[in-house]
Amino acid sequence: MNQDYIIPNEWSIIEEGFNDSRIKSSESLFSIGNGAMGQRANFEEKYSGETFQGSYIAGVYYPDKTRVGWWKNGYPEYFAKVLNAPNWIGINIFINDVQLDLHTCKKVVNFRRELNMKEGWLSRSFEATLLNDITVRVETKRFLSIDLDEVGAIEYSVTPITSNAEITFQPYLDSGIHNEDSNWDDQFWNTTNVSSNGNQAFIEAHTMKTNFHTCTFMESTLLLNNEIQNISPKVESSDTNVSFYYPAHVKANQTFTIHKFGGYVVDRNHAANQLVTAAKNTLKLALDLGFDRLLEQQKEAWANIWEMADITIDGDVKAQQGIRFNIMQLNHTYLGKDARLNIGPKGFTGEKYGGSTYWDTEAYCLPFYMATKNQEVAKSLLTYRYNQLDKAIENAASLGFKNGAALYPMVTMNGEECHNEWEITFEEIHRNGAIAFAIFNYYRYTNDYSYIPEKGLEVLIGIARFWHQRVNFSEDKQKYVMLGVTGPNEYENNINNNWYTNYIAKWCIDYALESIEKVKDEYTSDFKRIVEKVNISEAELSSWKKVADNMYFPYSEKHQVFLQQDGFLDKELITVENLDKSQRPINQKWSWDRILRSPYIKQADVLQGFYFFEDHFSTEELERHFDFYEPFTVHESSLSPCVHSIQAAKLGRMDQAYTFYLRTSRLDLDDYNKEVEEGLHITSMAGTWMSIVEGFGGMRIEDGSLSFTPQIPKQWKGYSFKVNFRNQVLKVIVNQGKTHFEVDGDKELHIKVNGEKITISPNNLVTV
Amino acid sequence: MNQDYIIPNEWSIIEEGFNDSRIKSSESLFSIGNGAMGQRANFEEKYSGETFQGSYIAGVYYPDKTRVGWWKNGYPEYFAKVLNAPNWIGINIFINDVQLDLHTCKKVVNFRRELNMKEGWLSRSFEATLLNDITVRVETKRFLSIDLDEVGAIEYSVTPITSNAEITFQPYLDSGIHNEDSNWDDQFWNTTNVSSNGNQAFIEAHTMKTNFHTCTFMESTLLLNNEIQNISPKVESSDTNVSFYYPAHVKANQTFTIHKFGGYVVDRNHAANQLVTAAKNTLKLALDLGFDRLLEQQKEAWANIWEMADITIDGDVKAQQGIRFNIMQLNHTYLGKDARLNIGPKGFTGEKYGGSTYWDTEAYCLPFYMATKNQEVAKSLLTYRYNQLDKAIENAASLGFKNGAALYPMVTMNGEECHNEWEITFEEIHRNGAIAFAIFNYYRYTNDYSYIPEKGLEVLIGIARFWHQRVNFSEDKQKYVMLGVTGPNEYENNINNNWYTNYIAKWCIDYALESIEKVKDEYTSDFKRIVEKVNISEAELSSWKKVADNMYFPYSEKHQVFLQQDGFLDKELITVENLDKSQRPINQKWSWDRILRSPYIKQADVLQGFYFFEDHFSTEELERHFDFYEPFTVHESSLSPCVHSIQAAKLGRMDQAYTFYLRTSRLDLDDYNKEVEEGLHITSMAGTWMSIVEGFGGMRIEDGSLSFTPQIPKQWKGYSFKVNFRNQVLKVIVNQGKTHFEVDGDKELHIKVNGEKITISPNNLVTV
Repeated sequence: MNQDYIIPNEWSIIEEGFNDSRIKSSESLFSIGNGAMGQRANFEEKYSGETFQGSYIAGVYYPDKTRVGWWKNGYPEYFAKVLNAPNWIGINIFINDVQLDLHTCKKVVNFRRELNMKEGWLSRSFEATLLNDITVRVETKRFLSIDLDEVGAIEYSVTPITSNAEITFQPYLDSGIHNEDSNWDDQFWNTTNVSSNGNQAFIEAHTMKTNFHTCTFMESTLLLNNEIQNISPKVESSDTNVSFYYPAHVKANQTFTIHKFGGYVVDRNHAANQLVTAAKNTLKLALDLGFDRLLEQQKEAWANIWEMADITIDGDVKAQQGIRFNIMQLNHTYLGKDARLNIGPKGFTGEKYGGSTYWDTEAYCLPFYMATKNQEVAKSLLTYRYNQLDKAIENAASLGFKNGAALYPMVTMNGEECHNEWEITFEEIHRNGAIAFAIFNYYRYTNDYSYIPEKGLEVLIGIARFWHQRVNFSEDKQKYVMLGVTGPNEYENNINNNWYTNYIAKWCIDYALESIEKVKDEYTSDFKRIVEKVNISEAELSSWKKVADNMYFPYSEKHQVFLQQDGFLDKELITVENLDKSQRPINQKWSWDRILRSPYIKQADVLQGFYFFEDHFSTEELERHFDFYEPFTVHESSLSPCVHSIQAAKLGRMDQAYTFYLRTSRLDLDDYNKEVEEGLHITSMAGTWMSIVEGFGGMRIEDGSLSFTPQIPKQWKGYSFKVNFRNQVLKVIVNQGKTHFEVDGDKELHIKVNGEKITISPNNLVTV
Repeated sequence: MNQDYIIPNEWSIIEEGFNDSRIKSSESLFSIGNGAMGQRANFEEKYSGETFQGSYIAGVYYPDKTRVGWWKNGYPEYFAKVLNAPNWIGINIFINDVQLDLHTCKKVVNFRRELNMKEGWLSRSFEATLLNDITVRVETKRFLSIDLDEVGAIEYSVTPITSNAEITFQPYLDSGIHNEDSNWDDQFWNTTNVSSNGNQAFIEAHTMKTNFHTCTFMESTLLLNNEIQNISPKVESSDTNVSFYYPAHVKANQTFTIHKFGGYVVDRNHAANQLVTAAKNTLKLALDLGFDRLLEQQKEAWANIWEMADITIDGDVKAQQGIRFNIMQLNHTYLGKDARLNIGPKGFTGEKYGGSTYWDTEAYCLPFYMATKNQEVAKSLLTYRYNQLDKAIENAASLGFKNGAALYPMVTMNGEECHNEWEITFEEIHRNGAIAFAIFNYYRYTNDYSYIPEKGLEVLIGIARFWHQRVNFSEDKQKYVMLGVTGPNEYENNINNNWYTNYIAKWCIDYALESIEKVKDEYTSDFKRIVEKVNISEAELSSWKKVADNMYFPYSEKHQVFLQQDGFLDKELITVENLDKSQRPINQKWSWDRILRSPYIKQADVLQGFYFFEDHFSTEELERHFDFYEPFTVHESSLSPCVHSIQAAKLGRMDQAYTFYLRTSRLDLDDYNKEVEEGLHITSMAGTWMSIVEGFGGMRIEDGSLSFTPQIPKQWKGYSFKVNFRNQVLKVIVNQGKTHFEVDGDKELHIKVNGEKITISPNNLVTV
């Protein structure tokens, strides 16, 4: 199902021609969102063909009872599932009593779908000949408002072409929906009230078990040839559905239009018993503006997003389309307005993976949000983990850890672990390291230390305590070892002394110790508060230090590389190049044991450590490790190519860097893994951004300043990106042979380019 | 729920006093079986309290769709479940229209249950006062015929004590039953016909998916004070149930009795469309004999079983009761009449574990059956695996192995793998070794080589091919290594170079090579047939030899022991003695990762190798390994204590040997693991037998002869056992200070006792 139907365009995702078999893929690719909600590009009108209906509300989930073969102590009882929410986009269309349904139409021509990335809307147009031989032209436009983020708007126009027709719009709300990804076919929603009032309707429903209260709402206005029509609707309702019938006699080539406004209000933002009132207020704001003005606001909001986040690529339309698609989808998923939300791996485009938060957030997404938003957004991501520290401590306690040791969950919605494979849940513990590293990274980038004494230090202490208890002293090695872990390379399980995990564990302890010292010296009252809360002593700290100073790191003298784990050199070391292509991807072709004993690496593992801690190693060391490990790497995780692309670029191997870049930038648009119909790979999209900015642009923070080593793939004429560095916005334009820098505002900015210090004056293009 | 209610008795399991909370435990403990079917000791009459209904037919199973959290390539789609079969024992009892139900009776006194091990029957007696204040005395006796193994018989007598009463027996058949252990609440049985004829009734039903056809049947006769009554029954039937009403006016102290005969005929033994006829034939055989004569036959059959299999223990009633209970339950489960059947870990006493065949059969049960039955029984167990060789080859192929490599399943009913945890299914591959070892062991014990050229060699070749492909050459170690396995100690997963697995792999290859040579030389036509079938070449054999000769065995110079696996010495080596008791059993107290990285051993692992290959090592080596590993062993498998008991005895540590013995002999009777209500631990019962015969008795085969090193626990006055060795029956009687040997028949027998050669003349007691 490799796709080639998306038409290359710099600012839009475009599909032309109607094709039943693409519906589910396109539903994913044309998804829209506004950080507070999102939805797959399901049709408004009835569609009886194969479809995957999905509309999602940020932070609203269902704890689906875990299904396992053999239960193990410590498994979570529930898996938090992203929840398909009540449908508010639905509009049934009747043409002389025949229902419009593209699956059953006699003919569909001129079908076109466009997701306009620049302005933030989705449109569709087609001409359909119905079973009654009437041909209509349909045009729709839909968006989820960035500004009024509880509301979305639809413009749906029908023009009979061949004859006059009685056309009825039946906009509806429906809470009788189901989740594709349900373990026990539970009912996820309990609908408590269905009501209507004039042209408005409301469904109040709460999730079972989690008890998230929501009100789904709608209000419509009707237009005939752009003239507002007052049509008193017939109302139909059931326990889980309410709809209005708006009929009109429409002459040939007249256009009947509905503007439907709808969306969700939730008890995270309003009192649970005031949701209908809140919905009415929201509708009033939207209706007062009207569809066109709301759309104008939308364009402005997206202009602001692009103003900071855009990357231009000159000379390669598909690459340009790919990177903007990634940036757009990241902004659909998370805008950083609410520290209770996070970045789900499928965003609002599907249900797979459940839960909203993986280590992807810290390891892959944080740099994007730090550079393309203000620093409060990145801080919100850190605060999310701080707010869940107690749960992480509970989680560790359930696994036998003590004294405030914190193990953050592999997958979570509310801080509780959702995942239930022992080799991941209990053993892929390096996630703790990424969470600590994000605190370091935030400070390094923003120079805002305040987060650490206020919140971050407690997180660092909990994490350090975990590592300190998780190792044991090996009499044999006379070192501290870490047994039974799964590293970032999930193609090895229950291994001993994963270098990456041991390294980041040591680093976490060292960084916690260093932070304790600094907070003790410089933030006395914070320190006092924290010591009282977490009850830390000098004896405990020196015990930590002993572990950090005596951590074991597997190393091969022969190959002069750190070993991914103790047993790596016993493997049959056949490189991927020498592996029969018919065996790829191994995660679809091989049984799990065969994968585990093979040398094949799913995603950067030792190299992930070299990425995080680049300045701990020389370029020669990086090169040696890259040359040792990359040839065994199958990149079967969407998170794999970006790190390798950045490192290849650093090693001056631009061809290889570009090859890796291509694998990530259009992963979903070209459906590499033949699974895009399940939803998009949101978190890896941030890796694409990193590949350009950190890889090709070579952006780093050195001694508190930005530094660059700009390179450009030979396939491109040029590219540009912007970064918000400590509240100064720097634009970087890289062409073949030269790079331009430009800084907004009124302060100069000192940067390094290829090792040389350069000062950029405000609004003054500097070329290197 | 540690039990102390079973009354010590040499030949019976006895419970006195009625106690609601013990019902499920007693249902397990008083289970009966005859190799072809078996059942929990459910009451015949209605019981509305907590109960676990179970009646099982050998070889009849249901492939329950696998339930896993995250599917992995190679997992079996179905898990073969032992299947609760239609109920034929049920007899509703009405006393003046009030139904007898011990859960609702006003009073139950003189309740007594007895499982008579000597004669093979289960009885129950009590006096119950019903809600209508009538008191009745009830006596029941039930057995499953060893001779007519499709039939069971029940005698159920009711005597009103306080007044005359109208008593109705309502014997019934019911196929509307369910399985406790069902993944998806599937319906397991499809009932196709319910019929009756006079006093006979039949339910034809087949299992869903597997399509095993069965006919459940019954016929009853009625007696009043032992006088046969001709009562024309009222018949009631539904889609899944048929019952007869036999009412009688019974005077106070008269006894109304029903003899109910029932059971199953199955299409493994009869044509599927002739099952009712087969059932009628079976009923005729049983009815012609009548209850009393059938019971006499039962006593004779059990006398024959005990004649060969009995172990007496003098001076310890509980130990005597324990060992006989184990021997009886093994005989309930498997009698060796049918090579299509095998020994399920719970026998016919519960549903847990699904599947009938584990490596327990070869590693633990074979010695018991070799010594207490004729050699055909042991041969049947070997043949079972031969018949499933093709499936084992398919199974290996599904995991990427080629060229006829065979991997036997971890759990199976029909040769297909049923288990679905990757660390077991794909990695606990040492099971292959036990299957090869059983072939060697059978020949060593019986001196019957014929099995190898006829069947065994093909199995050995398939297994050798598997090991040959499963290792890889480690450039680093310059040896063949085996990565990613789970050894007998299931508390370590995905380890490298498990010594036991590597050792048995090498042994399998060597033994296959040796067997090929011998068959080639001595069984030319068999060899020709096999070579043609499996297409083996000299080149292949020499490649095997290279692997066997260069296998890697982890060894600690410091401790002078083979290491359980590569990483063992990195563990925190705290002995079990120094582990807080509150942490035990660790499989209930600890999360899986903690167990995995701990040094704690579930059951013999390195020591299992020392058990199988005892004569490859010196006693000093055994002692060193025993002293190294046993202190880390938590014995949380029922299969653990027996091997340790045997080895402790060999090391002259009789106190320790006896302590281990106690853990196994009354494991179920005393409900050590608080789970006996789920069923009994059948396969470990054979280990108890081994503890006495191989442990205390020190029986071995040396140079084709029996040898003994008899010892006796100081708590016992004496013990005796018999073994059938190459068709000669030797009785061994060990007392404090001396041992007697006696051989049946007319041939003398040469044995070794404490290293000295002794000749036992027929029927002549020899004392040493």
